[in-house]
Amino acid sequence: MSLSQIRFVLVNTSHPGNIGATARALKNMGLERLYLVDPLEYPHAEATARASGADDLLARAVVCATLEEAVADCALVLGASARLRTLPWPVVEPREAAARAMALAGEAQVAVVLGREHSGLTNQELERCNALVHIPSNPRYSSLNVAAAAQVLAYELHLAAREAPPAPETDGPLATGADMEGLYAHLEQVLVEVDYLDPGNPRQLMRRLRRLFNRAQLERMELNILRGVLTAVQKKTGR
Amino acid sequence: MSLSQIRFVLVNTSHPGNIGATARALKNMGLERLYLVDPLEYPHAEATARASGADDLLARAVVCATLEEAVADCALVLGASARLRTLPWPVVEPREAAARAMALAGEAQVAVVLGREHSGLTNQELERCNALVHIPSNPRYSSLNVAAAAQVLAYELHLAAREAPPAPETDGPLATGADMEGLYAHLEQVLVEVDYLDPGNPRQLMRRLRRLFNRAQLERMELNILRGVLTAVQKKTGR
Repeated sequence: MSLSQIRFVLVNTSHPGNIGATARALKNMGLERLYLVDPLEYPHAEATARASGADDLLARAVVCATLEEAVADCALVLGASARLRTLPWPVVEPREAAARAMALAGEAQVAVVLGREHSGLTNQELERCNALVHIPSNPRYSSLNVAAAAQVLAYELHLAAREAPPAPETDGPLATGADMEGLYAHLEQVLVEVDYLDPGNPRQLMRRLRRLFNRAQLERMELNILRGVLTAVQKKTGR
Repeated sequence: MSLSQIRFVLVNTSHPGNIGATARALKNMGLERLYLVDPLEYPHAEATARASGADDLLARAVVCATLEEAVADCALVLGASARLRTLPWPVVEPREAAARAMALAGEAQVAVVLGREHSGLTNQELERCNALVHIPSNPRYSSLNVAAAAQVLAYELHLAAREAPPAPETDGPLATGADMEGLYAHLEQVLVEVDYLDPGNPRQLMRRLRRLFNRAQLERMELNILRGVLTAVQKKTGR
């Protein structure tokens, strides 16, 4: 794993100055890849001004329409969020998040996702994440500016990259975000077919299953086994 | 030593936005004391805007004419500087700087000093410091924005001040070893029933599934969902 395999994804950013400041923070820490999901104002003079000498990184930023698109090829998606959600999701601190990213081998892609200035990430966006990253902070004033949060996370990644031991051997490539979406669609279909999931009253079921499998960070071979089991169930039930 | 004994000192800051952003970074990390040495424009609407909810800290900022005055009562003065100087000065990284600050006893006062946006600290100002703090960075683009540098240093101080990390959030009790064995037996049975697992040639299948679910460290509620799915499949296939 190297820093060039890690992208920062800013979702629906309101203030262009924050985009520029994030570009600068990334370049300062040796990171190179910025994705912008549906930014409100971009390009913008304020972004360029705050980027200072990191305007090259800003110029190469990838603009996407959806978060899904921005993380489709990522094996590890880390969502920065100070907000508590109804369903607890695995939470790590920045140092542990950086270690997890660095422990990935070879060609894996990693995304660090930062939400909107005032409302963070939606539940649906949080569910795309393998884990949430909580930056330790003052409990009475915990919401960091988005570029400041990017700075802390990029700093920990820089430190982790500097000290990174050789990546551990794995048993083949990890599943990507797109692979996982395919699994969840298939799983949901089978759960409906076997009358376990009531589409009229889905409750938290798919969300809980997403949390479980995202946390486990599946290898592609494991994902193929699970898809094989689902297909076997479908054959047996005559679909 | 507590965070209330640590002040951040901004020297001769040009952009009032950086003063506000620093106030916010400090308050986010539980720090309370901001000193401003001869700021170019202060007070200023841009400082207040960027401070966001940390305007109380900004309102209590102490404005001084000289660095000498701002650090007169301090036992430890740490100067943030990316610049190399002719005379080698002790240099520490942020984590070590935070540990040094926290190791001071009782009534000692500590200052973290941040220099001008474009020229940092003068030699004379650096000589007032016990040590310089160098934030590890990209050697080809090493100069952080002053508020971003304050954020990194405040973050390390916050971590050093904190005694123990908070317990991770969970959603109820974890599954026990016996629960897991029950799940694996049930899973194996269903896999045989849907003709996915051949008992005469099991290969590594159950081992791989064990590795996956053990890695995920299931909560009991998640385990109950998985058992429910298996039972639903059995009902549907008529067993």
